Amino acid sequence: MSSLIVDSRDQRFVLHEMLGVENICRGRFESFAGDTFDMILTEAEKFAKEEIFPVLKDGDHQGCRLENGQVYGPEAFRKGYRLFCEGGWNAMMNHQEHGGQGFPMVLYLACADWFFHNFAFTMYPGLTSGAAELIESYGTEEQKHRYLPKMLSGEWGGTMCLTEAGAGSDVGALTTKAIRQPDGTFLIQGTKVFISCGDHDYVSNMIHPVLARIEGDPEGTKGISIFLVPKFRVNGDGTPGVHNDLGVTKIEEKLGLHGSATCVINFGDNGGCVGELLGKECEGMKIMFMMMNGARMGVGVQGLSGASFSYLQALEYARERLQGTNLLGKSNGSVPIIRHPDVKRMLLWMKSHVEAMRALIYFSGACHDRGEVSDNPEEKTKWNGLLEVLTPICKAYCSDMAFRICETAIQVYGGYGFCSEYPVEQILRDEKIGSIYEGTNGIQSLDLVGRKLGMKGGAYFMELIEEMNKVLNRYKDRCPDIVDDVYGAVESLVNTVLYFGQCGKDGKFAVPLVNAYPFLMMMGKVVSAWFLFWQAGIAAEKLSAMGVDTADRKALKARAKEDREAAFYAGKIAGAAYFIKNVLPEIEGTVKAIRREDMSILEIAEESFAS
Amino acid sequence: MSSLIVDSRDQRFVLHEMLGVENICRGRFESFAGDTFDMILTEAEKFAKEEIFPVLKDGDHQGCRLENGQVYGPEAFRKGYRLFCEGGWNAMMNHQEHGGQGFPMVLYLACADWFFHNFAFTMYPGLTSGAAELIESYGTEEQKHRYLPKMLSGEWGGTMCLTEAGAGSDVGALTTKAIRQPDGTFLIQGTKVFISCGDHDYVSNMIHPVLARIEGDPEGTKGISIFLVPKFRVNGDGTPGVHNDLGVTKIEEKLGLHGSATCVINFGDNGGCVGELLGKECEGMKIMFMMMNGARMGVGVQGLSGASFSYLQALEYARERLQGTNLLGKSNGSVPIIRHPDVKRMLLWMKSHVEAMRALIYFSGACHDRGEVSDNPEEKTKWNGLLEVLTPICKAYCSDMAFRICETAIQVYGGYGFCSEYPVEQILRDEKIGSIYEGTNGIQSLDLVGRKLGMKGGAYFMELIEEMNKVLNRYKDRCPDIVDDVYGAVESLVNTVLYFGQCGKDGKFAVPLVNAYPFLMMMGKVVSAWFLFWQAGIAAEKLSAMGVDTADRKALKARAKEDREAAFYAGKIAGAAYFIKNVLPEIEGTVKAIRREDMSILEIAEESFAS
Repeated sequence: MSSLIVDSRDQRFVLHEMLGVENICRGRFESFAGDTFDMILTEAEKFAKEEIFPVLKDGDHQGCRLENGQVYGPEAFRKGYRLFCEGGWNAMMNHQEHGGQGFPMVLYLACADWFFHNFAFTMYPGLTSGAAELIESYGTEEQKHRYLPKMLSGEWGGTMCLTEAGAGSDVGALTTKAIRQPDGTFLIQGTKVFISCGDHDYVSNMIHPVLARIEGDPEGTKGISIFLVPKFRVNGDGTPGVHNDLGVTKIEEKLGLHGSATCVINFGDNGGCVGELLGKECEGMKIMFMMMNGARMGVGVQGLSGASFSYLQALEYARERLQGTNLLGKSNGSVPIIRHPDVKRMLLWMKSHVEAMRALIYFSGACHDRGEVSDNPEEKTKWNGLLEVLTPICKAYCSDMAFRICETAIQVYGGYGFCSEYPVEQILRDEKIGSIYEGTNGIQSLDLVGRKLGMKGGAYFMELIEEMNKVLNRYKDRCPDIVDDVYGAVESLVNTVLYFGQCGKDGKFAVPLVNAYPFLMMMGKVVSAWFLFWQAGIAAEKLSAMGVDTADRKALKARAKEDREAAFYAGKIAGAAYFIKNVLPEIEGTVKAIRREDMSILEIAEESFAS
Repeated sequence: MSSLIVDSRDQRFVLHEMLGVENICRGRFESFAGDTFDMILTEAEKFAKEEIFPVLKDGDHQGCRLENGQVYGPEAFRKGYRLFCEGGWNAMMNHQEHGGQGFPMVLYLACADWFFHNFAFTMYPGLTSGAAELIESYGTEEQKHRYLPKMLSGEWGGTMCLTEAGAGSDVGALTTKAIRQPDGTFLIQGTKVFISCGDHDYVSNMIHPVLARIEGDPEGTKGISIFLVPKFRVNGDGTPGVHNDLGVTKIEEKLGLHGSATCVINFGDNGGCVGELLGKECEGMKIMFMMMNGARMGVGVQGLSGASFSYLQALEYARERLQGTNLLGKSNGSVPIIRHPDVKRMLLWMKSHVEAMRALIYFSGACHDRGEVSDNPEEKTKWNGLLEVLTPICKAYCSDMAFRICETAIQVYGGYGFCSEYPVEQILRDEKIGSIYEGTNGIQSLDLVGRKLGMKGGAYFMELIEEMNKVLNRYKDRCPDIVDDVYGAVESLVNTVLYFGQCGKDGKFAVPLVNAYPFLMMMGKVVSAWFLFWQAGIAAEKLSAMGVDTADRKALKARAKEDREAAFYAGKIAGAAYFIKNVLPEIEGTVKAIRREDMSILEIAEESFAS
């Protein structure tokens, strides 16, 4: 088992040759210009290989335990947690004025690509960083002063207490109460479930942002406020004080992420749990969604990182494992299994999906950053709009495809893939949650179809289409064998969106509703094809400058065998061709199905599902 | 968590209304005529609910352990194992003359549908039964007398020792030696890996059929023989004697099937491991394949059973779990999540896939039985040929789709699906191996495309097409809204096979080779659509006899709400319509991709996969 995690050449290709990230290193990101990106990524790679990857399995084996109300994380993570915080990796996107690193989002995502394959490990600092961002944005000066330094140093931890047993996807149904006290604080009473890293022993205090309803406030989401609820109340001098009447009553046994405790937390069983309002009353959902949008990108990059890791592990195995003889042509004895066409098919399928996901996630992060540094309000709106449209794709498409990539990695290993001796079975287990938390993928598809596509009268979506066509026009002569497929796919995408719009006008709301998830997956494929085409266009340009004729695939293969750079670019050409000619046609089935307007889903009685 | 495992109404529908299994109850299956099938299935249901389902989780938690060379299975399985054997369920397909039940294969598969959701449990008797079948077919009278009574009573266990560390998919590379002894026995020396139930404490002896090469025999598969190697040598009086110098040196830690030990077994470390030849010398592969074909059907029904269980569990959860309000129309407060269109989509997707798999597996079993009881050699050949063609689809399509159904079941549960409190995460883990063992799904697809399609000049495949068209013609007026889709899909299937044939003639062998797996999945979908159409046709006939107009979906739904039988048949209509209009169109992408003759998989240099 090796420490292959990310193809760093691909990472730099996306950042520099494709996205030109130097352009975002201005304004508040000015200090990241020049070599800074690459230097930071080199450090991230080093840290991932030395501290995070080596504890992947131990964290899974040791798991978490609850003893006398205290949760203990895996012993294997303790040292890495401390070093991660010392290195400032725990606060990558937090503002510099409070002790964060102030990274552009795309740089944070690129670092996460290295770290998140061991997602149980990175959840500890990740949750804290997210909670701290809420305080940075909505806290009073006093709250910032009280909480941020210790949270951003890693001395204290943070969570997000949202879900209740009866309020999962339906947040508005929550029943946790906040009782107003004369001193302006609130007494919190209720039980939250599925609280990741809800308690642990790597920190001396935990700060819980908790969604609750102030007594008398309206039902549903509009009556929800958010409170900061520390495990130990904070003394005047900033040290942890008395216990705040909250506690973990259970940690879940689960499929994966064993290194991270998923907690049930009771607040105020004895009437003594004090919280302070964050932001204004009844603004809880708005504030929570700030964290949620970041968390959805986090789930996307969790998928990317696990998929990238699984792919590279399977690739290495396929290069080393000898089994069977060559099916096309002669071989002396056994060959590495990468030579078998069906194994190579699985590897190329994984490669093209992983690299499309990387481009999608990094591009989306760069949209955020371009919005941040732009002085032009129109441009700002455009970049933020693209991020809005792409967020559900990053979250849902990447988490679902990541799981499938993990499945395929196991298949490449054969029987050994099923065994814990190799790491791919763990990654499969760890990744499964990605399609569920931070809004299930069904909810993501409703968000996309019901909200994002129509935002600003569809303008954000059309901006994306314009970006896609720009790239297609730029490289159409470089990749003549695949450009028409992608043009056609983009057109199908637009037509489907227009069709949904027409269905809405005709009162056929059910058509987009029952097809929301298939549409999201279709859009993920079209966007992936676009990114892969874009990359193939750049690669063709570079190869042409190296004197290679990309239309001559035999010559290209020969050159790839003797020149690493040519090999990389040739891989881009092959990956794009494979995806666009073999995977992209899948959208035609989706389009056809949508146009049928089949309503079987609604026509079937609940009684008909089983006797 | 309830004991919902199989929709028994669907089971009887397939057996009686669709396949008319009474027709196979003749010849050696005569004793199963009348009510016998249903009585046995009622007992199987009872046993599954009382003894097998209740130990599902305990078996997983307790797992297996190796102590001083002895493997111990989960304590939770001990009682069930004994009762299973006492009930004769351990020897369902073994011949009656040796103590087996002599079930028709379709009845065995229908019982397995009940049992195999707890596959770790059923592997113990299952492996023994398979090993006993080899002895029944190829053993001498003396061997039958020595081994069968104790194996079929469950007193002794059996395995299949095939794989070695360097010989997995490439069986011919095995290095286990058989050294001829003057008394006609052989000394066995070598190490086998991935031996399921390779040892356990539910039995007093283990009988290992072992593939090995007699010294001096040719390399590759043609020099392989098969030997019976007991753990304890058998005394003259049939009792276990001295230890036979073989032992388990390791059990694998793995993703799932924790209740079943996957063993490394060393044979003859001290030169004292005696085996006796089974069948003739160098016939090992032929004999092993008899077991393998049965095992592949077993993997198919493992997939079906796990998928059926996961679907019904998720369905029950979706009917009970209240969350969110109605998106289409009004609701007072929270509704069961089955009312949400995207949840209903997942359930209908699962239902249609599970029911198609059940039809496919039972139909294939009935082909076997029809071949068994037919007196007409031509007919015999036809039924056996259909089974040949369908076996790789049963194995590979069902195992891959089962995994996807398990994934979808988890998604229906949301966060609780990830938790071990509910059973679906375990089934996902247990099912993953199905795509790997008994020949990976990549190998199944090569078997289908490279061997089965062309058998007897393509006659078997064309027999299947004829069967399909017969059904389409019979019910075309009953289901006018979907019949053309299925006709078209069958035509696409035939054209693709002809196209592969033409590629072969043109020397383009790589086209079928790189597309073998996509083709297998495509064929699985077409066959599924055919079975679902068939079922919808029967259902429409029955509903019509009940006075229901199936074209009026509103009236159908209303009737389904008040009449269980109508509800069942209406479910068949909806499931077929959903699958044929929404899932079946996926094959168009596959056809298009195949026709592109894209060779990226072969054109990419191995160096281009990652830097």
